[in-house]
Amino acid sequence: MNIQCPLPTTNKDSIRLGHGSGGEMTQQLLKNFIQPLFKNTWIDQAHDSATLPWKSDQLVFTTDSFVITPLFFPGGDIGKLAVYGTVNDLAMGGAEPKFLSCSLILEEGLPLSTLKRVLESMATAAEETGIKLVTGDTKVVERGKGDGIYINTSGVGTLLSNHPIDPSYIRPGDRILLSGDIGRHGIAVMASREGLEFESALTSDCAPLNWAVKALLQGGVEIHCLRDLTRGGLTTALVELAETSGRAFELDEEQIPVCESVQGACEMLGLDPLYVANEGRFVAVIPEEYAGQAIAILGEDPVGESCAIIGQVSDNPSCQVILKNGLGCDRLLQRLPGEQLPRIC
Amino acid sequence: MNIQCPLPTTNKDSIRLGHGSGGEMTQQLLKNFIQPLFKNTWIDQAHDSATLPWKSDQLVFTTDSFVITPLFFPGGDIGKLAVYGTVNDLAMGGAEPKFLSCSLILEEGLPLSTLKRVLESMATAAEETGIKLVTGDTKVVERGKGDGIYINTSGVGTLLSNHPIDPSYIRPGDRILLSGDIGRHGIAVMASREGLEFESALTSDCAPLNWAVKALLQGGVEIHCLRDLTRGGLTTALVELAETSGRAFELDEEQIPVCESVQGACEMLGLDPLYVANEGRFVAVIPEEYAGQAIAILGEDPVGESCAIIGQVSDNPSCQVILKNGLGCDRLLQRLPGEQLPRIC
Repeated sequence: MNIQCPLPTTNKDSIRLGHGSGGEMTQQLLKNFIQPLFKNTWIDQAHDSATLPWKSDQLVFTTDSFVITPLFFPGGDIGKLAVYGTVNDLAMGGAEPKFLSCSLILEEGLPLSTLKRVLESMATAAEETGIKLVTGDTKVVERGKGDGIYINTSGVGTLLSNHPIDPSYIRPGDRILLSGDIGRHGIAVMASREGLEFESALTSDCAPLNWAVKALLQGGVEIHCLRDLTRGGLTTALVELAETSGRAFELDEEQIPVCESVQGACEMLGLDPLYVANEGRFVAVIPEEYAGQAIAILGEDPVGESCAIIGQVSDNPSCQVILKNGLGCDRLLQRLPGEQLPRIC
Repeated sequence: MNIQCPLPTTNKDSIRLGHGSGGEMTQQLLKNFIQPLFKNTWIDQAHDSATLPWKSDQLVFTTDSFVITPLFFPGGDIGKLAVYGTVNDLAMGGAEPKFLSCSLILEEGLPLSTLKRVLESMATAAEETGIKLVTGDTKVVERGKGDGIYINTSGVGTLLSNHPIDPSYIRPGDRILLSGDIGRHGIAVMASREGLEFESALTSDCAPLNWAVKALLQGGVEIHCLRDLTRGGLTTALVELAETSGRAFELDEEQIPVCESVQGACEMLGLDPLYVANEGRFVAVIPEEYAGQAIAILGEDPVGESCAIIGQVSDNPSCQVILKNGLGCDRLLQRLPGEQLPRIC
């Protein structure tokens, strides 16, 4: 497995253990690399926590750690992913993203230029999604105890809908809307990792989903549940929702969009696109009467151009996800037993 | 190419890459190890975020990652530390800790029994501090890309005081209250790491500080600023506060409590206790007229038995921290340039 950034021997241009000491070197790192990129009232206060104004009687709260390798891949990097990932989890709770924390675990020897590039990418992604980075932490581990950079982001947001959006609202007859074609992230990362080349350039679908969710809610679409597709792909997301909600889903295989490059790569590699990771796709479970309106709104958004209704919630209490193909064959979709592609996010 | 199946040689009683897949193995880990320990409405919902009730127009938000080695040390472990650390950062913002997130980065090969022990410790610490773990994430990295367990916790809390507590409130004449004797955590961890033995058993000071802060505020003590002593010890905390507030501090060396074992170990190891790490100590900057009351209240709390007023804020705008000893000598305290003891928290 190739490593994107070979670590140089210790020198002044790379991370040293002292950068995690909490002392002078940590201070310099904050002053030179972090504070200039994320200037706001709370970061500037340099306290161990941020005290933030809150105008809602509900709070949506989420966390994710990112350990993807390589750190930079076609269409994205770990910094972008770390901001989008948490913003998307907030959006999937029906929330408007408000404030973000960022905690870095850096490996001794990481080039400072790599760190800078990742942080700049985080700053751009934060700007793009409207979330403010207000608190953080930096730790350094010895060479061989990490892998360049691991990032944790946690986020808080305010509810945009008039009720929480979670699996308990899923009802029989609801339609399952998929926001776009699947599998781009997993295949792009795998190709980058293994040095594979495809006929047409394939990039990750890595994207923020908060604006699309806001457009749906503000457009008056009633949403019962949302879930972004990450590790384990479309199948894992739907199996989780079926089990948590106690409902069964019936999917129409022909309606699930998969682009030609992903389809070709999957055939070559022996993978099933239904299980390949995504970082900018989601499913929305919505009442039937809102399906047309949702497709119209989502189709206008760059992340939803190829959105489609791919199935529905049945009144069968089996908690199963059944894939129906054009030949009348049913296939029961289940979680992957093990790991398809480690460290994909 | 590393796809589809984990290697069959891996032991069933330890973490495998599949535990980070988001698939069946991740699900089993959650069901068997995490959900039974942290049962509440939000964990049980199994959504990617938690939607929480919020009864305040302010929100205190903080994050920390924990990479301490060894995972278990005299007086504590990484799990306890991860809960107390974030609870303490909330308390230092004058907040009552409400909700916690937990994100794990596990190394392939970690014994499941070790994970269980750490999670049980986190559950006990959460119970003890009154914070609820409501959302989380688990990632697995390959053998040699981590060090057993890294934990990120983020937390949110509601403000207990009638104004935010941060360095901008520090005023000349304020007294500096130290909650207890210093250096126990750093020395206990170093001893455990290096196999050193001291005459009297020394344990980490690792403790939750939220109850002590609540007692001070509810007892009517006006608090201008709080800061817990962690990496870099008492000196680093005070230098940071001096610089951020633009004030100078004068400390009386004789008033700073250091227990005999820590003093002895520091002499033997060539360390200065003023820089040794703590995980259950804090300084409070308070108006002079509240000093007696604060000592009386804090002295009643187990974490504050040996509390003392150790100095005051001067009207000198130098941002310096000056240590005065009994012989009339002044010593300028500065941040450590590099690292004294890596991975102490």
